[in-house]
Amino acid sequence: MGNVRNVLFIMCDQLRADYLSCYGHPTLETPNIDYLAQQGVKFNRAFIQSPSCGPSRMSFYTGRYVASQGAFWNFVPLRPGEHTLGDHLKQMCLTVAVAGKTHITPNTADLQRLGIDPQSEEGRCYREGGFEPYDRDDGTHLAPPGIAINNNYAEYLRDKGYVDDNPWLTYANSAEDGDGTILSGMEMRHARLPARVREEHSETPYMTDRAIDYIRSKKDEPWCLHLSYIKPHWPYVAPAPYNDMYDSGSILDANRSDFDRGDLHPVIEAYQKLRVSQSFRPEAARQTVIPTYMGLTKQVDDHLGRLWECLRQLGRMEDTLIIFTSDHGDYLGDHYLGDKEFFHEESVRIPLIVYNPSPEADSTRRTETDALVESIDILPTILEGLGGDVPGHILEGRSLVPIIRGEHNGDWRTSVLSEFDYSFLPVRNWLGMPVDRCRMYMIRTAEWKYIFMEDFSPILFNLTENPRETVNVSGDPKNSRILSELNGQLFERLRSLRYRPTLPDSVLEDWREDKMNPGLKIGAW
Amino acid sequence: MGNVRNVLFIMCDQLRADYLSCYGHPTLETPNIDYLAQQGVKFNRAFIQSPSCGPSRMSFYTGRYVASQGAFWNFVPLRPGEHTLGDHLKQMCLTVAVAGKTHITPNTADLQRLGIDPQSEEGRCYREGGFEPYDRDDGTHLAPPGIAINNNYAEYLRDKGYVDDNPWLTYANSAEDGDGTILSGMEMRHARLPARVREEHSETPYMTDRAIDYIRSKKDEPWCLHLSYIKPHWPYVAPAPYNDMYDSGSILDANRSDFDRGDLHPVIEAYQKLRVSQSFRPEAARQTVIPTYMGLTKQVDDHLGRLWECLRQLGRMEDTLIIFTSDHGDYLGDHYLGDKEFFHEESVRIPLIVYNPSPEADSTRRTETDALVESIDILPTILEGLGGDVPGHILEGRSLVPIIRGEHNGDWRTSVLSEFDYSFLPVRNWLGMPVDRCRMYMIRTAEWKYIFMEDFSPILFNLTENPRETVNVSGDPKNSRILSELNGQLFERLRSLRYRPTLPDSVLEDWREDKMNPGLKIGAW
Repeated sequence: MGNVRNVLFIMCDQLRADYLSCYGHPTLETPNIDYLAQQGVKFNRAFIQSPSCGPSRMSFYTGRYVASQGAFWNFVPLRPGEHTLGDHLKQMCLTVAVAGKTHITPNTADLQRLGIDPQSEEGRCYREGGFEPYDRDDGTHLAPPGIAINNNYAEYLRDKGYVDDNPWLTYANSAEDGDGTILSGMEMRHARLPARVREEHSETPYMTDRAIDYIRSKKDEPWCLHLSYIKPHWPYVAPAPYNDMYDSGSILDANRSDFDRGDLHPVIEAYQKLRVSQSFRPEAARQTVIPTYMGLTKQVDDHLGRLWECLRQLGRMEDTLIIFTSDHGDYLGDHYLGDKEFFHEESVRIPLIVYNPSPEADSTRRTETDALVESIDILPTILEGLGGDVPGHILEGRSLVPIIRGEHNGDWRTSVLSEFDYSFLPVRNWLGMPVDRCRMYMIRTAEWKYIFMEDFSPILFNLTENPRETVNVSGDPKNSRILSELNGQLFERLRSLRYRPTLPDSVLEDWREDKMNPGLKIGAW
Repeated sequence: MGNVRNVLFIMCDQLRADYLSCYGHPTLETPNIDYLAQQGVKFNRAFIQSPSCGPSRMSFYTGRYVASQGAFWNFVPLRPGEHTLGDHLKQMCLTVAVAGKTHITPNTADLQRLGIDPQSEEGRCYREGGFEPYDRDDGTHLAPPGIAINNNYAEYLRDKGYVDDNPWLTYANSAEDGDGTILSGMEMRHARLPARVREEHSETPYMTDRAIDYIRSKKDEPWCLHLSYIKPHWPYVAPAPYNDMYDSGSILDANRSDFDRGDLHPVIEAYQKLRVSQSFRPEAARQTVIPTYMGLTKQVDDHLGRLWECLRQLGRMEDTLIIFTSDHGDYLGDHYLGDKEFFHEESVRIPLIVYNPSPEADSTRRTETDALVESIDILPTILEGLGGDVPGHILEGRSLVPIIRGEHNGDWRTSVLSEFDYSFLPVRNWLGMPVDRCRMYMIRTAEWKYIFMEDFSPILFNLTENPRETVNVSGDPKNSRILSELNGQLFERLRSLRYRPTLPDSVLEDWREDKMNPGLKIGAW
C-alpha cells in the first residue's frame, strides 16, 4: 500500500483500552500514543481472540482463532503446521524481528518426530514462531534461586551493577523497605514502592533502546519489527518517578454491581474466588496497584515519544506502517475480578491504533471507527499493507486496509468472537468440570455480548442499555430471540473456521477434474 | 488386550456394507468375510467421517474428524502436526506397514519451511503418513501416454508379459473387443468384459500375496499391517471369471423415489447432474456395472480366504487383531446418484468387522451390534487392543474394546458425524456457491438422519419409518423439535473437537500454577 516499506508492530501486555487519554482516561495523559491516533485511525471496538497472553498472541501471530491454532493457553506449543507472521513475510523476503515478548512455545515432540534439527535455520525459525529473536524476552523470569537468568536484559542489568542470578526479579521487579529487605513485586502490596533500578535501566526503556538499535541498524533496508513491551503486565512495580506519579485520587472508580457479587452466575462466582480476584477486592488494593499500573503505562508512552523522535530523524515516519495494540486488558478489581481470563470489556477490549504513511490513508487520519475488529485482523493488515497476498484459506481475519483507506463500504463483520478455556484454573475444580468441558465463547455485537459456557446458562449483556455489563439479562424472556440469534452466530463461526490451510482457495476456484489427473473421467459411460 | 500381538487392518475401497452376505446381500455370497464376522463382532451401524477416499482415510489414519485433520478431499496434504496410526504405534516401538492404498499426501511446502529432509527417516515417515510403504499403491494410475508407471505392481505386470508404460490401465483395468482394440475401464459401458490380465495377475491377488509375504517375513516378531485393497472401486473391470459371475438378475433393485428425482432439494438436484449420476441413470447401466462390482467384491472375499488360511498355518489367528472395513460406499445409481460424496446410507455406511483373538472377547463372538460407530474409532481400538494408551487430547474416536469385550455398559455416543465439502465438484458452480460455503454435515442417530448444508434448507430422514431415505421430512412442522435437537448436536460436536493436540489432558488434570513456574504467585497480595 503506497509507500509502506517497513512495519513497526508495537504491543503492550495487559494494557486496557480505557487507560489511555485518547480512549478517554480522565487523568492518565498519554500524548505520544495519542499522537499516533492523531496521525492514523483509532479503533474503538478492537478485541482479542482470547483473554490470556499466550492464546491471544498466538492468534495475533497466526491470524487464526484459538479453535484453529490450538495454543489455547500460555506455554501450549504451537503445532508445526501453523504459519506465523514470520512465515508469511518470508514469502515476501522479509524477516520479522522481535524485541520483547512473544510467548511462543515450540512442540519439541513434533520437532523430534519430524526430524527437524533444532539448530538449523528452519528449526530455529519454528522454535521462535517465525520471529528473528533480535532480543526476545518473555519477562516473568522466575527460576528457583541459584539458577542464573542469562538473557540479554539480565546481562545488561548485571553490567549496570545490579548483580544477582535473577536481577529481573530482585532489581527490576522488586522494591525494598527501609532497612534494605527486598520486597518482591510478585506481592501486590508493594506496588507503590519504587523498583530497585534507575528508570533508564528498567524494562521499558531497555526494550525501546533495542528497538531503536534495530531500526538504526537496518539503515535503508526494509524491516519489520515487533516491539513487544512486557508492561504494564504484573509485577506491578515501576521505577521512580513512575511509581509515584499518580495517586489514589487519579484512578477510575471500580466498575462493580450486585450481579458482580456472584449472586447470579456460578462461573463468575468461581472466578471471584481466585486469589487475584480476592486480592483486588479491598478498595485499598485498587488504590495501591492502579496508580502504579498507570505509571507503567505512562512510562511506555514516554518512551514511545523517544521512538517517534527516532523514526522522525531517520525519515521512517514516511514509510513505516505502525500498529499499536495490547494482548488483552486487566480487570484491576472491576466486577470483583483480577487479572483477565473472562470476557468483560475490561479484559477483552484492547487499544488499537493503525498509522499508515501512504497518501491513500490521508482521508482517515485523526479518525476513529466503531468497526468490530478482531486481533486476527492485524496479520492480514500487515500483509496487505506491504502489498502482499492474503492467504484466505489460512487466515481467519480481515485486512483493515479498506477501513484505513476510507474505502470501507459497510460490508464488515457484525460480531467478534473470543474464546477461553479455564481447564487449567482452579475454577475448573471448584465447578467440578472435566478438562474437556471448560471452553467458553464470547460473541459481541455492537449492541450485545453473549457468553456461552458448556454446561452453564449463558450470560447476556445489553451493551446499549448497560455498557458497564453489570446486569445479566439472559433470563429475561424478551431476550430469547436475540439469545438464539447470537447462539446461531457462534455456531456459524465454528462452521466457518479455515480447516484446510494446506489448500489455497484458488486451486478450488480453478478446479477441473481432468487437470488433476489426465485420463481421469469419473463416471464416464 | 489379552494375547493380541499383531494387527491386520484390512480396508476395501468403495465397498458398500450391504454388498456382503453377512450384511444381508441375497445373491452375493462372501463366506470368508462372513467367517470373520462369525469369529468376531459385526457392526451394523458403522459410518465414515467423509464419503470420499482421501478425507475418509485421513480420518481413519489420524482418528480425527475432517474438521480437525483438515485433509478434506483427495490429494489435500495432511498438516505436519497431525499424528497418524504409525506415529502412535511408534511410541509402542511398532511400525505399521502398508500393502495397497493410503492416499496420503504430504505438504511439500511445510517440509521445506520446516527444513525436514525428505530423505531422512523422519521425512520419509511424514511423507508416507507414518506408514512403512512395504508396497504402497494408491491405484488410479493415469499418467499421460509416454510416461511410464514404475511402481511395484507395474513392474510385476511387465514381468508377467503385460508390457506397456501403464499396464495398470491398459491391462489390469481395460478390456478389449473382438479385434483387439483396447477398451478403457474408465468407461463404464465396458464393465461386463474381462480384464486383459489373468485373474492371478490382477490387483486383488497381487496385494494379497504381498500381505502374505509381509506376514511370513515377520516370523515371530509382532507386526501391524494395513492391507488396503483398491477394489471394488472403479474402474469397474474384473478379470475372468469374476466379470461374468453375476448377471443382471442378481443385483439389488434400485433404491429410488420421487424425492430422489430432485424435486425437493437443490443440492441433490445438482448432484444428480454429475456425469457419474447421469451415467448410472439408465437401468441398463446398473445392470452392466453392478454385476462386475459384485464380482470384484467376490474376488476380494476369495483372496481373503487364502489370507485366513495363511494366518491359520502360521498360528497368527491366535494373536492377531483383525479389522475388516471400507473407506465408504458406492451409490451405484441409487437415489439417481453415482459414486459417493453425499450422505445416504449407500455412501456413508460401511462394513466393519472386528476379530479379537483374546479370551476376553469370547463372549461376543458371532454377535452383531447396533452401536453407532465412527471410523475414527478404529485407531483407538488398535491402540487399546495392543495394550497402549489412547491419547484423548488428540484422538476424537472411542475405542471399541469395551464393546468387543461385552463390557459395553450403554454409555455410548447417540449419533455419528460425517462431513463433506463439495467445493471441488461442479456442483459448486451449478449452485453458485463460493468455495468456503460448501461444507455439509450429517448427524445420524438410531432414528434420524439430519443433513446440514450452508445456505440451503436441511434434509431430514426418519430412518425408522423410511429406512430407504426417500422422503425428506424436514419441512414437516411436527419435526421442528427434532430438527432443532439435531442441529444442537452438530453445534455441540463442533465445540467438542480436540483443538489442543499438543497438550495432554493429564497436564491439566494435575495442574498447579506453582508447578509451572516456581515463585509465580499470580495475584498474591
